[in-house]
Amino acid sequence: VAGSSDQPAHEGVTVGVEMHRLVSEMFPLCRSITGLGLRRSLAIIARELPAVQLHEVATGTRVFDWTIPQEWSIREAWLEDPAGDRIVDFSANNLHVVSYSSSIDRSISLEELQAHLHSLPERPEAIPYVTSYYHEDWGLCLRHSLRSSLKPGIYRVRIDSSLAPGSLTFGEAYIPGRSKDEILISTYVCHPSMANNELSGPAVATFIGKWLAAKASRRFSYRLVFVPETIGTLAFLSRNLAHLRRHVRAGFVLTCIGDDRAYSYLASRHGRTLADRTARHVLSHLAPGHRSYDYLQRGSDERQYCFPGIDLPVCSLMRSKYGTFPEYHTSDDDLHLVTPGGLQGGFELVRRCIETLEANETFVATTIGEPQLGKYGLYPRLGGKDVSSKVRLALNLLAHSDGTSDLLTLADRFGVETRFLRQIADELVKHGLLRSQAGDLEAIDHLSAP
Amino acid sequence: VAGSSDQPAHEGVTVGVEMHRLVSEMFPLCRSITGLGLRRSLAIIARELPAVQLHEVATGTRVFDWTIPQEWSIREAWLEDPAGDRIVDFSANNLHVVSYSSSIDRSISLEELQAHLHSLPERPEAIPYVTSYYHEDWGLCLRHSLRSSLKPGIYRVRIDSSLAPGSLTFGEAYIPGRSKDEILISTYVCHPSMANNELSGPAVATFIGKWLAAKASRRFSYRLVFVPETIGTLAFLSRNLAHLRRHVRAGFVLTCIGDDRAYSYLASRHGRTLADRTARHVLSHLAPGHRSYDYLQRGSDERQYCFPGIDLPVCSLMRSKYGTFPEYHTSDDDLHLVTPGGLQGGFELVRRCIETLEANETFVATTIGEPQLGKYGLYPRLGGKDVSSKVRLALNLLAHSDGTSDLLTLADRFGVETRFLRQIADELVKHGLLRSQAGDLEAIDHLSAP
Amino acid sequence: VAGSSDQPAHEGVTVGVEMHRLVSEMFPLCRSITGLGLRRSLAIIARELPAVQLHEVATGTRVFDWTIPQEWSIREAWLEDPAGDRIVDFSANNLHVVSYSSSIDRSISLEELQAHLHSLPERPEAIPYVTSYYHEDWGLCLRHSLRSSLKPGIYRVRIDSSLAPGSLTFGEAYIPGRSKDEILISTYVCHPSMANNELSGPAVATFIGKWLAAKASRRFSYRLVFVPETIGTLAFLSRNLAHLRRHVRAGFVLTCIGDDRAYSYLASRHGRTLADRTARHVLSHLAPGHRSYDYLQRGSDERQYCFPGIDLPVCSLMRSKYGTFPEYHTSDDDLHLVTPGGLQGGFELVRRCIETLEANETFVATTIGEPQLGKYGLYPRLGGKDVSSKVRLALNLLAHSDGTSDLLTLADRFGVETRFLRQIADELVKHGLLRSQAGDLEAIDHLSAP
Repeated sequence: VAGSSDQPAHEGVTVGVEMHRLVSEMFPLCRSITGLGLRRSLAIIARELPAVQLHEVATGTRVFDWTIPQEWSIREAWLEDPAGDRIVDFSANNLHVVSYSSSIDRSISLEELQAHLHSLPERPEAIPYVTSYYHEDWGLCLRHSLRSSLKPGIYRVRIDSSLAPGSLTFGEAYIPGRSKDEILISTYVCHPSMANNELSGPAVATFIGKWLAAKASRRFSYRLVFVPETIGTLAFLSRNLAHLRRHVRAGFVLTCIGDDRAYSYLASRHGRTLADRTARHVLSHLAPGHRSYDYLQRGSDERQYCFPGIDLPVCSLMRSKYGTFPEYHTSDDDLHLVTPGGLQGGFELVRRCIETLEANETFVATTIGEPQLGKYGLYPRLGGKDVSSKVRLALNLLAHSDGTSDLLTLADRFGVETRFLRQIADELVKHGLLRSQAGDLEAIDHLSAP
Repeated sequence: VAGSSDQPAHEGVTVGVEMHRLVSEMFPLCRSITGLGLRRSLAIIARELPAVQLHEVATGTRVFDWTIPQEWSIREAWLEDPAGDRIVDFSANNLHVVSYSSSIDRSISLEELQAHLHSLPERPEAIPYVTSYYHEDWGLCLRHSLRSSLKPGIYRVRIDSSLAPGSLTFGEAYIPGRSKDEILISTYVCHPSMANNELSGPAVATFIGKWLAAKASRRFSYRLVFVPETIGTLAFLSRNLAHLRRHVRAGFVLTCIGDDRAYSYLASRHGRTLADRTARHVLSHLAPGHRSYDYLQRGSDERQYCFPGIDLPVCSLMRSKYGTFPEYHTSDDDLHLVTPGGLQGGFELVRRCIETLEANETFVATTIGEPQLGKYGLYPRLGGKDVSSKVRLALNLLAHSDGTSDLLTLADRFGVETRFLRQIADELVKHGLLRSQAGDLEAIDHLSAP
Repeated sequence: VAGSSDQPAHEGVTVGVEMHRLVSEMFPLCRSITGLGLRRSLAIIARELPAVQLHEVATGTRVFDWTIPQEWSIREAWLEDPAGDRIVDFSANNLHVVSYSSSIDRSISLEELQAHLHSLPERPEAIPYVTSYYHEDWGLCLRHSLRSSLKPGIYRVRIDSSLAPGSLTFGEAYIPGRSKDEILISTYVCHPSMANNELSGPAVATFIGKWLAAKASRRFSYRLVFVPETIGTLAFLSRNLAHLRRHVRAGFVLTCIGDDRAYSYLASRHGRTLADRTARHVLSHLAPGHRSYDYLQRGSDERQYCFPGIDLPVCSLMRSKYGTFPEYHTSDDDLHLVTPGGLQGGFELVRRCIETLEANETFVATTIGEPQLGKYGLYPRLGGKDVSSKVRLALNLLAHSDGTSDLLTLADRFGVETRFLRQIADELVKHGLLRSQAGDLEAIDHLSAP
């Protein structure tokens, strides 16, 4: 069982700072759902977390209803005004080019150009993030303030990109535990230069992986995946579905988990899976004012994880949910929006969820009627007005340990943290007053082992 | 599946006007639970809806705990004051005589007369509606203002009626659909000259029958019954119980459905049948401010339809519920209380319930993971800030089509109308992305066919 | 079935006065979990309720996780100040000695003495109630005002007690009914001179036993136990567990049930047992403003009755719950706190719960469709605006008697008392319109009889 101190000495804010450094290193790379920037980003993650292995899925491979697209390479993209000034340049910000834009190199009137420009009137100083993965087109994104100032005339536009057979890359780390049952952590690595959405998830997942790998022992096995959103997730699922459906006990999508404005949770489709119960439990203690979103408000990879036929117990953990913050999907989602403290809070949230899962078992009282706690040194000697809250909690745990409720359920009933209740359970087990329920996860896993 | 436009061109307010004309035609007839007025009323209904067949159940026939009573005929009923003025006369308003009153022809003191007079102190200008079906008695009903002015003296009272072996009449229309499973519409035709309670139900049921019969195709079969309340309902049930229990999927009692003050729903005994879910769903969109009544507040034929041993999934659809409007069971429930607009609204309510039932199936997603909607021309080409509400609804429908929830459940979850969700489902079925659930109603019906 | 009048003539306030007299008689005895005072108290109860039999459980007997302790005898206990004045004396109030205190007889400095004194700074004029059953120690309890005035010096302390092999005593009355299924009433008799906690419970249980024994007939059998709290309860349970688990249908712990400030209920662990439903039903009518406590707020013998492996359907009935009134566990819990009216109210609560249980059966309507109530003289002759609430209740009862809900459930649904609904059920049974459900408690009991 995981240690219960909230802030081990060797971590503290250090982890937040280290995660912010990782985000900063990866920020300039031009990621997409395929290509060089994606591959370089995964290499950095693998350097930090050596358990990460890279998988390549070839262009044209069918993944369920989808097909792996051609690999996109982008070399340059710019726009020159009638005076010959280069007013938009991919080399300054990779959001300037529509992701998966095709090539173009020609002179063009402003009127014709407009159909290929993207900007945000409501946020005139931000460059929007636009993609066209599955429909061939070319386009540039720019600040609306600049676009408004464009004069009629002949512009020069050049995009030097290519779409060619290649592969889609994703990263996967498997960190084994005592049980083959596993906890899934999924995040996505396909967004270009934006920080909260989405380098915060990869950074937190990487450092959660480092923390898990450093633990002496784990009850569950852990699978961390770093995938291009949607298509990469489906590629990963198509290769592993039977295994995942058999072994995943809970899973979390990490996204937009690096700002410091809010804590958020988005339910799985079923809404009451072990992942949901864990997330809600931890958030009720860690961030009582957190925001809770229904599955109908989804928008990330839980769309695939919870789809009929896949049906994994996966919910999402976030700080400020995608679509709810004004910088979302623009160049303003930058290294200022994501902070060391924000990342640290995201890390804490995920770590506590894992500690809760590790601690969560179902116990059975071994005595008929209350045990005589005094015999075990667990009861105050003088019967008087009241007993301590810890003794009361021990008695409550014993009194409800009939094998029908796991610790998480009881911790919610008693209004305490599962990690704390597990300490009391361990003490009672030590005295022979509780035993782990036959039919526990490990036992089930043991039975189901080949 | 029914068309989805709310107001087909050939209907509009026309239907309301036509229904009001039908109510007006039937209004003067002196209906009771048996007899000539009842039979004439059913003949008018059968003229409008030729599918209606009349059934006669002979006096003395046992129907469950009841016995079909003798047939009542009423020829005249009047009261003359000591001066010889005819102050109460059945020929002016058939409410003046207690329904099933026995004959009398004598001179009588005011004191003795009083025990046989019925009036409403709290509504002095209205004639009350009083019956004495199963206890032989005679009586006259009159305005309380008149009764208060009566002077002592000898009055002349004459009621010329007869109770004699005959039969109870009810009407029934069966409109077949693709499935033998059926939807039941029940209303009652035993009230004398009152409009909302109860000529509105017969009028709306008649025009619903005309609308159903004119449809090119129906998924369900429909059974419309026009019965004397309670005893007629039991007679109908006693003849058809096994069939109805096997085939009725949902049923609605139509009563007090012609005024324009409110929309009301009264739950079935179980409260969560398909009929209840349909009624609540439709009313939540059609009339969000509608009134919802518990089964404990019942007072019409759902008393029989939901009784243990009968247990059909039947709830009631109303505008202003019986007992809640001041004109209830008096001569003030007249052709002014019921309006074309009120009847039209009642018709709309029933029609939408039927359209919802016709549209309600359970679907299963055919893909594992989200389909690539773009391949089917169902997705906007450029990924940007948001997708349209229709695309989102399609994705929600796919994401929840795991075979456990029918469209009605999902429409409630998504906050849209079932009829609209069905359009999206049909489009997805067309693209092969959804299929109708095996074990659907039709399939079950097919299996259970003899 | 029990009579339904709330206050039979021969009882009235008399019972309250008689119960207060019993409390007063038992008040001076020095009860503990074993010993002479306990035995004498049980003898008084047995004199009032001859069905009570005394059981002795020998020192050293294992009862589940516990062992019956040595028997404690206390002869004298006092403290003399340096001036030789006897300032604390057990003969004045038996709370002055810590229950199960060992002997001592020596001169002692104030400083050393302090570790063995117990007082309440927040309630300076009350003597606290302190026990040390399972840890050998000696101690005296005194008013804090006195303790504060003690001057340094040499004090003389003497406690003449002994702990020796003996036995623990408990009382048990079994009052047979038509069914072997039984209702359990449990209260505890181990507290020294305190009235509400706990002579009120024994007094109410005694008079409930007298009332039950005087009834001509009982549907259920009744078991009333008068036990030392916890250890005595476990002793009783260890001797009868298999029988109790098979036959107890509902049980109530009676404690703190003699003051007149509040009515209180504390749920069983499961919270929805027949005992809970009965208690909540009765209290909703008898004392709508009563207090309802969760099982987490427990503190009496429901701790044992509801423990996993015992799992009896037992909740607690109280006036002011232990721990919630300022006099709790002090000498201020005296014969003024408990009043004849308070005890009478407690008695009423328990009696109504029993009457409700006796009345509670499941009925099935014998007709298909509503019966023709008029045939049975149960319906008003003239159909008009409304029917009486009693007729409506009869119709509601018939309409819901499908064999799935007992009278208690239906009484809650209809908002009436079960005892009243039973009267209507009996009338309908008399007319053959209802029958008791096959599979009723008696029938089950009959089948399970050896």
